[in-house]
Amino acid sequence: MKIIIINGPNLNLLGQRNIDVYGLVSFEDYLLELKDAFPNVDLDYFQSNIEGELIDKLQEADGIWDYVILNAGGYTHTSVSIADCIDAIRIPVMEVHISNIYAREGFRKKSLLTAFCMGSIIGLGLDGYRLAVENIIK
Amino acid sequence: MKIIIINGPNLNLLGQRNIDVYGLVSFEDYLLELKDAFPNVDLDYFQSNIEGELIDKLQEADGIWDYVILNAGGYTHTSVSIADCIDAIRIPVMEVHISNIYAREGFRKKSLLTAFCMGSIIGLGLDGYRLAVENIIK
Amino acid sequence: MKIIIINGPNLNLLGQRNIDVYGLVSFEDYLLELKDAFPNVDLDYFQSNIEGELIDKLQEADGIWDYVILNAGGYTHTSVSIADCIDAIRIPVMEVHISNIYAREGFRKKSLLTAFCMGSIIGLGLDGYRLAVENIIK
Amino acid sequence: MKIIIINGPNLNLLGQRNIDVYGLVSFEDYLLELKDAFPNVDLDYFQSNIEGELIDKLQEADGIWDYVILNAGGYTHTSVSIADCIDAIRIPVMEVHISNIYAREGFRKKSLLTAFCMGSIIGLGLDGYRLAVENIIK
Amino acid sequence: MKIIIINGPNLNLLGQRNIDVYGLVSFEDYLLELKDAFPNVDLDYFQSNIEGELIDKLQEADGIWDYVILNAGGYTHTSVSIADCIDAIRIPVMEVHISNIYAREGFRKKSLLTAFCMGSIIGLGLDGYRLAVENIIK
Amino acid sequence: MKIIIINGPNLNLLGQRNIDVYGLVSFEDYLLELKDAFPNVDLDYFQSNIEGELIDKLQEADGIWDYVILNAGGYTHTSVSIADCIDAIRIPVMEVHISNIYAREGFRKKSLLTAFCMGSIIGLGLDGYRLAVENIIK
Amino acid sequence: MKIIIINGPNLNLLGQRNIDVYGLVSFEDYLLELKDAFPNVDLDYFQSNIEGELIDKLQEADGIWDYVILNAGGYTHTSVSIADCIDAIRIPVMEVHISNIYAREGFRKKSLLTAFCMGSIIGLGLDGYRLAVENIIK
Amino acid sequence: MKIIIINGPNLNLLGQRNIDVYGLVSFEDYLLELKDAFPNVDLDYFQSNIEGELIDKLQEADGIWDYVILNAGGYTHTSVSIADCIDAIRIPVMEVHISNIYAREGFRKKSLLTAFCMGSIIGLGLDGYRLAVENIIK
Amino acid sequence: MKIIIINGPNLNLLGQRNIDVYGLVSFEDYLLELKDAFPNVDLDYFQSNIEGELIDKLQEADGIWDYVILNAGGYTHTSVSIADCIDAIRIPVMEVHISNIYAREGFRKKSLLTAFCMGSIIGLGLDGYRLAVENIIK
Amino acid sequence: MKIIIINGPNLNLLGQRNIDVYGLVSFEDYLLELKDAFPNVDLDYFQSNIEGELIDKLQEADGIWDYVILNAGGYTHTSVSIADCIDAIRIPVMEVHISNIYAREGFRKKSLLTAFCMGSIIGLGLDGYRLAVENIIK
Amino acid sequence: MKIIIINGPNLNLLGQRNIDVYGLVSFEDYLLELKDAFPNVDLDYFQSNIEGELIDKLQEADGIWDYVILNAGGYTHTSVSIADCIDAIRIPVMEVHISNIYAREGFRKKSLLTAFCMGSIIGLGLDGYRLAVENIIK
Amino acid sequence: MKIIIINGPNLNLLGQRNIDVYGLVSFEDYLLELKDAFPNVDLDYFQSNIEGELIDKLQEADGIWDYVILNAGGYTHTSVSIADCIDAIRIPVMEVHISNIYAREGFRKKSLLTAFCMGSIIGLGLDGYRLAVENIIK
Repeated sequence: MKIIIINGPNLNLLGQRNIDVYGLVSFEDYLLELKDAFPNVDLDYFQSNIEGELIDKLQEADGIWDYVILNAGGYTHTSVSIADCIDAIRIPVMEVHISNIYAREGFRKKSLLTAFCMGSIIGLGLDGYRLAVENIIK
Repeated sequence: MKIIIINGPNLNLLGQRNIDVYGLVSFEDYLLELKDAFPNVDLDYFQSNIEGELIDKLQEADGIWDYVILNAGGYTHTSVSIADCIDAIRIPVMEVHISNIYAREGFRKKSLLTAFCMGSIIGLGLDGYRLAVENIIK
Repeated sequence: MKIIIINGPNLNLLGQRNIDVYGLVSFEDYLLELKDAFPNVDLDYFQSNIEGELIDKLQEADGIWDYVILNAGGYTHTSVSIADCIDAIRIPVMEVHISNIYAREGFRKKSLLTAFCMGSIIGLGLDGYRLAVENIIK
Repeated sequence: MKIIIINGPNLNLLGQRNIDVYGLVSFEDYLLELKDAFPNVDLDYFQSNIEGELIDKLQEADGIWDYVILNAGGYTHTSVSIADCIDAIRIPVMEVHISNIYAREGFRKKSLLTAFCMGSIIGLGLDGYRLAVENIIK
Repeated sequence: MKIIIINGPNLNLLGQRNIDVYGLVSFEDYLLELKDAFPNVDLDYFQSNIEGELIDKLQEADGIWDYVILNAGGYTHTSVSIADCIDAIRIPVMEVHISNIYAREGFRKKSLLTAFCMGSIIGLGLDGYRLAVENIIK
Repeated sequence: MKIIIINGPNLNLLGQRNIDVYGLVSFEDYLLELKDAFPNVDLDYFQSNIEGELIDKLQEADGIWDYVILNAGGYTHTSVSIADCIDAIRIPVMEVHISNIYAREGFRKKSLLTAFCMGSIIGLGLDGYRLAVENIIK
Repeated sequence: MKIIIINGPNLNLLGQRNIDVYGLVSFEDYLLELKDAFPNVDLDYFQSNIEGELIDKLQEADGIWDYVILNAGGYTHTSVSIADCIDAIRIPVMEVHISNIYAREGFRKKSLLTAFCMGSIIGLGLDGYRLAVENIIK
Repeated sequence: MKIIIINGPNLNLLGQRNIDVYGLVSFEDYLLELKDAFPNVDLDYFQSNIEGELIDKLQEADGIWDYVILNAGGYTHTSVSIADCIDAIRIPVMEVHISNIYAREGFRKKSLLTAFCMGSIIGLGLDGYRLAVENIIK
Repeated sequence: MKIIIINGPNLNLLGQRNIDVYGLVSFEDYLLELKDAFPNVDLDYFQSNIEGELIDKLQEADGIWDYVILNAGGYTHTSVSIADCIDAIRIPVMEVHISNIYAREGFRKKSLLTAFCMGSIIGLGLDGYRLAVENIIK
Repeated sequence: MKIIIINGPNLNLLGQRNIDVYGLVSFEDYLLELKDAFPNVDLDYFQSNIEGELIDKLQEADGIWDYVILNAGGYTHTSVSIADCIDAIRIPVMEVHISNIYAREGFRKKSLLTAFCMGSIIGLGLDGYRLAVENIIK
Repeated sequence: MKIIIINGPNLNLLGQRNIDVYGLVSFEDYLLELKDAFPNVDLDYFQSNIEGELIDKLQEADGIWDYVILNAGGYTHTSVSIADCIDAIRIPVMEVHISNIYAREGFRKKSLLTAFCMGSIIGLGLDGYRLAVENIIK
Repeated sequence: MKIIIINGPNLNLLGQRNIDVYGLVSFEDYLLELKDAFPNVDLDYFQSNIEGELIDKLQEADGIWDYVILNAGGYTHTSVSIADCIDAIRIPVMEVHISNIYAREGFRKKSLLTAFCMGSIIGLGLDGYRLAVENIIK
């Protein structure tokens, strides 16, 4: 089972900014924990602030990994192009958001991506990634 | 750890209707599996088609159970009163939806409840309930 | 042929209130006329002001009666849950409204239910129920 | 009792197009059945694709026929002028739609005409015309 | 000075319908008064219930008459095509409405035509036509 | 003078939840104070979380009590059916809200009920009930 | 016959600003022409840039003049209070606009006042005032 | 206890216009009654049709009176500047409306002021002012 | 290969009006060029300003011609009935617009027809018709 | 170089209210600093809470001063008449806001004035006025 | 004649994904056909999933190529920045879409780019590119 | 004091395109002037057409420079991700726009960024950058 986690804009700041919301753990450290928790899963990770590079990676994932876990950050609310890409590729994509996007400003209350994903896990903190893996390997 | 699962309107039909979407398992049968999977968790279950009875049960839950897992069905999209209730009680509530509500008609694309819940698990089938318990006991 | 008529909130006031609009006949009296007009049809009747009890009865109708004639009153405009229920059950539901809801205030100009019903008869007074039976037994 | 049925745009295609939705019967053939069913009613019929010709006929009907049964087709959703005409003439107009317009695209979910008609029968197929006559002669 | 008055749908009913609003004078009779009042003006008149015939006449007017006085009735609120035509022809068009359209239902509160006309006279009854001529010959 | 106070969803939690906003007094205790303040008024009280039971009670009130004081809680913003009921019954209904609903989230900024009530008192705490009685007995 | 013309904000600039649109004539000069044209009409004039002073003058007009001709300038589009005043006073008010407000920016395309006036004359330049007097004395 | 009542546009017409709605009592006469009813309260009164003079008075009130009772009339629905002023000054402001503004046209269904006031009393006639004083001195 | 070009309102003015936008060539002249360019294609042409005549012709085309090239002019933005007709007939329809409708006023920025056409060619001048034929015969 | 600063409603409270946001300096004191900073500029100042007096002053400024610096306070969001005035006068107007209006409630997120001003300086505190002068004298 | 074709996100998947919609031909293969069809045209090609790289290329095209044929994919519906770029550069841009975007979900029904392009060809498959070249070299 | 100026899409065209609006000076040349004007400020500059590279640079700025001056060009109106980034980083960001964006098309009339910035300077040309520095070093 090969899974790639793709994180979008500003998620490289985890552990450094807004630590009252997101805690002190960087995603790289959390990834180590995740790999320990799932020794039989081949987990890879990619982050970019650039919308098109997320699309590049999603396209590339198709045929190499079995699943994508995607947190598209702010592009969740605006990117028709990432939605198109999820729709076009053949591997299933699971959507994760660390904080509860629906408890925030109005323009965050819609996701252009959810309709094309296999499911969404929202607002459970970093543990959302673990649950996504759990659901996939079930 | 004491958790109550509260299901809203039409969820008593699970296993009998729309079996291509929801499968053949009734919620009662699924609950047995869930109890087996978590022998150390005290799991209870309540279902009603009546909005106000869901509010009654949510109020009553406060002080008896430690967590609520709530699938408010169609009331998710219209009930200010259930939202108020979740806001008023002191125990955390986790939102679960079996199907991907955001891949459906426009009026299902908003949840009045999510903003007051600790998190949401959407579109993962009955397994969403299991993941909710997982997240709670973590 | 077994048909159940299900009436929603405030329809128990027929013959007592707004008599200039609805006349002096109570629904119970009208039902007697209806039974006389269709001696070969097994007609039953249920009324409740409670949204969830309408859902309970719609679910229960499935397997006992052949058709439902539904006037959901004010819930017509707000109840996603009744719409879900009509969608879930296997027996066809015919929508009836006594007055012309589209000639009234803006928030009455949409029905969440019509899309899931086999048809609608609007604004023909109590005679709408008779026409509904006529269409069903045709 | 003299009734004229006025059909709007594309209803001359009945029996030739979209036969899975509308069946194989042309309106002319259906009219014969209708006349047989109501031997004491003087039934006339008019169809035009031109909005203004429907207005001409509605104006002309006033003083010649006792009732109009109107299916204004696509003009239902856009014609202020037909609505004005129904409002101006003195004979009552009954609205009929063969298919369930409320189960279709958003711009079909409003009727500019219903508010000025005596009632509406929607989605009951050609039988809607028969029920309209039934209600009128009641 | 040659002026043509073009009236749209239902204005042929003046003097016959809604006489509490519009009075008992037909437009033909009013036209005679108007011709008496302006003996030096060559006044012509055209009415149609058909949107496209109004366009035909507006096009034809260009090159024959010097001005158009237009009361497009219900098409005022819906006709992009009449607006296009007023924009395309070279003779100025004055808009007249007999009743105060802005004191009526919401969908009557916008005119697609006003922006392309030289001016509008609204709600002054048939006298609006006289004032339109007055302004033109000034 | 006979007045019934009808409270809607979550108002049974007064004195137990959100005590920084609503204080420590339960409605039952407050009712005793109110009865002391108006010894000549026959004051009754009813609370339910169920929309339809509020309608049942409003219908029943008609003919027994002289006035209703209604705080419909979260149903204020969503219930067409309660609005219909207030419109149908013959006794006047006064609307009270303990907190300032217009200083809260957007979906609380409209009341479907106010237009059918004799008046509204908003944001004056429990004292709003006293003022309502004052106005009624004036 | 006593008529007062009330002009709102920026109309004191007539003849000094935007002379390509409004010409070189000040309203004071135009008023002299108007008085010459109607020797038997008692014409008065008032201008203010202050919304409330326009209301003061409209109230005061009631009982002194027989008619008001009002050009409320920019307040046309925003003043609920002037609309209230026109509705409250007993003398009829005629609305005049010098330029075609409907050919301008979107926020100018609605008038809060028209619905309460006896009629409107729009876009005919200063001649609109003359036509207003013509219609009044007719 | 020193309270100033500030009334906005057209409220100086009380007792003279719309007497079927507002009665025959002028506000000056009503004020005398009010002073009699509360002999220990120092009650002052101010009315203006000018938005900015209401702001002037609200600012001036701060430091002289203890409370303001404000009926801003038509400015209730449009004045960001009065809302700003209520927000800026330190004395509490109670909102009163004589008629039920929510039972009127759509543009009257929002108040820009309520969110900044201590509470609102709507639709109880002149008695709303008395109840406001009652609540303040409680 | 038999193709009919159907042009809607005001397109008969080509070459006579707005010649800075549309040039000096009439559609009749252009048609001759088009026939020369495609000697093996049987090209016919129809123009009307009347919405319903365009529908008549579209219906008639079905069974006689192989393709329709349609420029519905101003009806593009308002005609549900033409959209219905394109949907009902069996021959494919290609949409052409001479000017760039999306660079104009807001109400021109939607086409009710495009969704039912095989494709659209917009803003390429008269050459759009040639390209439409090219695509069809490819 | 002659510049007039015109401040709108509530800005006379600077230094007295909301001192955590606006500081303790009154505008009069700040003006002294400003005059010291620009000894070669002739700086004048005007404040009013009355919309129409701001218009009076803007009109009067034209021909006396070279530039206006305008902070229209709450009228920024509602005044078509001030926008008209800025558009009509010949001297350029610079818009200043002390606080960041775009970080506040929704109805503050639009300015009717900006489009007619030479530019805007927002959210830089009182220093915005200094920068405005800097840009003007540059 | 030098033309560059610029394709946006996910168009590199042509021939590999959604082959029922787009066919089995990759854009590279199609380009060869296109070059054969127009031997006298210098055709170049660029694709990127990154919005800003499309802008880079559009800017660079200005001065090197004579025309751009642009299919901006999902950015068509969201990119103000690409629209700005088309507006800023001096060479004309032709818009092409392979599928009929107006027959898809609501958020695809607007193009931010069309208004700045010389024209659009929509829904004609890959042949749209050929027609674009045809129109350019005409 | 270390300040970085970050410019978004199409701002690299300054001095080459739209020179009637923006003048003939490139940003590189202007930067030299700016450095001369503020010899004690360490000024750096970055431009990219790629949204994510602007985010990369904003993140990188945090900890190296003291302030950012940001002109996000077209991304101002669409980028939730840049807004998130400004919110996440600890250094203050000043927004500058060279032209008056509020005097342009509707979709340019909102900025997603302003609410998260310390302030905005709009429409003052390149001088806006100088004033931003002035305000920062004050």
